[in-house]
Amino acid sequence: MSCIKSFLSISFYETGNFKDLCKGPHVKNTSEIKAFMLLSVAGAYWKGDSKNKMLTRIYGTAFKTEKDLQTFLFQREEAEKRNHIKVGKELGIFAINNLIGKGLPIWLPKGNIIKEEIEKLAKEKELEAGYQRVTTPHLAKKELFVQSGHLPYYEDSMYPSMRMDDGTYYLKAMNCPLHHLIFNHKLRSYRELPLRIAEYGTCYRNELSGTLTGLLRVRMLSMNDAHIYCTKDQIEEEFLSIVKLIQNYYKIFGFKDYWFRLSKWNPENKKKYIDQPKNWEDTQDILRKVLKKLKVKFIEADDEAAFYGPKVDVQFKTVLGREETISTIQLDFLAKDRFNLQYQDKDGNMNKDVFVIHRAPLSVHERFIAFLIEHYAGKFPLWLAPTQIRILSLTDRYKKFVESLEKEFRKEGLRVESDTRSESMSKKILDSQNQKIPLVGVIGDKEQKAKNISIRTLDGKIQYDIKIDKFLEKVKKFIQEKSSVYKFK
Amino acid sequence: MSCIKSFLSISFYETGNFKDLCKGPHVKNTSEIKAFMLLSVAGAYWKGDSKNKMLTRIYGTAFKTEKDLQTFLFQREEAEKRNHIKVGKELGIFAINNLIGKGLPIWLPKGNIIKEEIEKLAKEKELEAGYQRVTTPHLAKKELFVQSGHLPYYEDSMYPSMRMDDGTYYLKAMNCPLHHLIFNHKLRSYRELPLRIAEYGTCYRNELSGTLTGLLRVRMLSMNDAHIYCTKDQIEEEFLSIVKLIQNYYKIFGFKDYWFRLSKWNPENKKKYIDQPKNWEDTQDILRKVLKKLKVKFIEADDEAAFYGPKVDVQFKTVLGREETISTIQLDFLAKDRFNLQYQDKDGNMNKDVFVIHRAPLSVHERFIAFLIEHYAGKFPLWLAPTQIRILSLTDRYKKFVESLEKEFRKEGLRVESDTRSESMSKKILDSQNQKIPLVGVIGDKEQKAKNISIRTLDGKIQYDIKIDKFLEKVKKFIQEKSSVYKFK
Repeated sequence: MSCIKSFLSISFYETGNFKDLCKGPHVKNTSEIKAFMLLSVAGAYWKGDSKNKMLTRIYGTAFKTEKDLQTFLFQREEAEKRNHIKVGKELGIFAINNLIGKGLPIWLPKGNIIKEEIEKLAKEKELEAGYQRVTTPHLAKKELFVQSGHLPYYEDSMYPSMRMDDGTYYLKAMNCPLHHLIFNHKLRSYRELPLRIAEYGTCYRNELSGTLTGLLRVRMLSMNDAHIYCTKDQIEEEFLSIVKLIQNYYKIFGFKDYWFRLSKWNPENKKKYIDQPKNWEDTQDILRKVLKKLKVKFIEADDEAAFYGPKVDVQFKTVLGREETISTIQLDFLAKDRFNLQYQDKDGNMNKDVFVIHRAPLSVHERFIAFLIEHYAGKFPLWLAPTQIRILSLTDRYKKFVESLEKEFRKEGLRVESDTRSESMSKKILDSQNQKIPLVGVIGDKEQKAKNISIRTLDGKIQYDIKIDKFLEKVKKFIQEKSSVYKFK
Repeated sequence: MSCIKSFLSISFYETGNFKDLCKGPHVKNTSEIKAFMLLSVAGAYWKGDSKNKMLTRIYGTAFKTEKDLQTFLFQREEAEKRNHIKVGKELGIFAINNLIGKGLPIWLPKGNIIKEEIEKLAKEKELEAGYQRVTTPHLAKKELFVQSGHLPYYEDSMYPSMRMDDGTYYLKAMNCPLHHLIFNHKLRSYRELPLRIAEYGTCYRNELSGTLTGLLRVRMLSMNDAHIYCTKDQIEEEFLSIVKLIQNYYKIFGFKDYWFRLSKWNPENKKKYIDQPKNWEDTQDILRKVLKKLKVKFIEADDEAAFYGPKVDVQFKTVLGREETISTIQLDFLAKDRFNLQYQDKDGNMNKDVFVIHRAPLSVHERFIAFLIEHYAGKFPLWLAPTQIRILSLTDRYKKFVESLEKEFRKEGLRVESDTRSESMSKKILDSQNQKIPLVGVIGDKEQKAKNISIRTLDGKIQYDIKIDKFLEKVKKFIQEKSSVYKFK
């Protein structure tokens, strides 16, 4: 309302001789401006008519303290430097093409490596945690989405329907209905619960084209998805295990400033929430208990749950100070009714009290990799870096040795390039730095003679004369341990 | 024509007292039937009216020799036993669900393992062969498919269009146009050629619902796709390298009875083929030369090429004696014009003579896994088997040891299950055999005391008292080497 009001009320402001028809407020006099900075200039025609004279528009910003101004300028510069669209292009991570469409990025070879490494990590961790992987089709018949409730409630966010010779099909906006069918595809025994079905599932959302930007808002997304089918008694252990998984992932990526947000129902708000008061209260208590037990930072938000159950989002402060949600865990009391989920209990009876947990710790590839680009400013750690090492020859004399090393390193499983161009060493190092390659191997006379390598890291430090065997042993260890510090001696 | 003719001409046949209005020919008398077998009976109402009496229809088959009959019966039984829909269901490989649609299989956990192992193999081999991997979106704007020529020529095979706020979109029927855009997304240098872009790309084909069957004909398929961008001079080496890759794959899977088919143009048939006579003749010569050089079995087929260039298909005789095409390699002289493909040559000039090679050695997952199920009759070799070993306890007394082994084996990366039910050993072995699990570990008194394991293979042979360490060492070697013979001693 305040926004509408400000449009409706007209106010004048005066500073010295300058009168302005403006929302304001302006300062009384310029001495009130403690810290300011002119940011840019632009040309504009008087009254917007190109027949008139060109005026100069000056952009600036002001803060109450010099410190606030400096913080703003630093973050502005960082945001520019870490901008995922700019860095993504420079490093060849992804491309957007008008012939394809704005919200449909291509993963270029270097971006595809990052995507596959993240997927590999998820597969490893989820295998350890007892998940089973599946692959579901990207589209299904209308009837499925009517049953799931996506139609008609979510239709606006879905792609248009496609009429085929045997019915009407939709691209899926979510993976859940398909995972529910997998749960249902055979008689389930209590012995199989909790049943954890995982997939990097691809979903399609019909976002407005004007809102699409880089990887952050797209129309086709690959989600680190899984659904856990369990009894009420099993929720606590499953939830605990998911929170630990998230903590484990965040540690690997070096996310430190994060907290959990428990979104609860509002018993008064009958329309917004499914009518299962006991399930709401019981499960909210379980979630709270686990968060307390794990001693994680968390807040509670009333009246913020989904229709079908409470949820826990993980909020994360980015390096630029923005608050974002990365991971989410949602309980679902509705799916069991919509999909008639049930299992055979110890006594051979069918039990319909199946709880579903939706979880996506690593979000969707597109959004997550946008965050990672910003988080690392493109300087990916060794295990994620598209090129892990580039070997440079000091002069043409070392070309053969460099090429033999490249071959050897590749055979050892490293993502390696070599630069044996007849360029200066400083130019070659600069090119490698611009590509944010974590390790630069330098080969000169000394190295060639002793069959050593000298390694330059992105901080500009050089570690001289490392035995090749030792280098390989260490570098594999750094990759294996997902380390971001590379000391070879 | 002969088919139509047989519908139009009416003929009568007589055998003894039996007169029949039938295409024929019938035998003169039953002594001519050397080998016959009644196969089944079915009920049918007289004149197809359920008010009439029920008749019995008898099905049978006859051959000229007993041997031919036996071959037919054997293959019929094998076909039934190896039927990919039947075996796929029994082993939990895939599922078809009416709420999703017939041509859209779900990869269940066990099938997903097979799919991922095949993908892993392709990634390894293609990395070695210098391919770069990408991921492209599953849909794109109409304009792209107009440029590629899919619209309107191929529109009938494509899914219906989807109208969005910024244009009309189609699910892709092929990956090529998107790979061409990747080639074009930056200025390419001659140094980058041959450029090999690979992807397990997903394509969508609007097949008629009546033709959809199991995994063999589907509407969404994951193709072992790649496109190689090269100069004319490079075709020979690239083609040779692809044929070797195919031979390598076939060796791994144990496909022995296969040959190559070189499909050529027909210079007279101007409409069917792109008008570049020199390119046709030159490249056909190159392909033939390589096939001869590699001393592979091949035939040549005139007037069988694609519009845009000659192709080489790999024909394969299945275990049931059917001839199928698995792999394909196609040259393309058209893409460079349609997509303005070009590169900067040594002298800095733009060269437009870019040849494209399309290749898919492992076909599409759906079709390929259907073949594999049939080929192995569900008995997948260790490296592909969804469950590699199941450990059985002779009685409850060995349960703990079995469970500790299961844990240890899983930690070592094996796909392991245990069966510690209080069932008889023969029942447990039977269940394991029905699931076609390659190795069954048996734990009884002797094994527990000595910390050994006895291994039963699917051929019923048992290898007793293998040291656990030795077993693990060997089993990892068998997996690594993709072996199908498991001798532990």
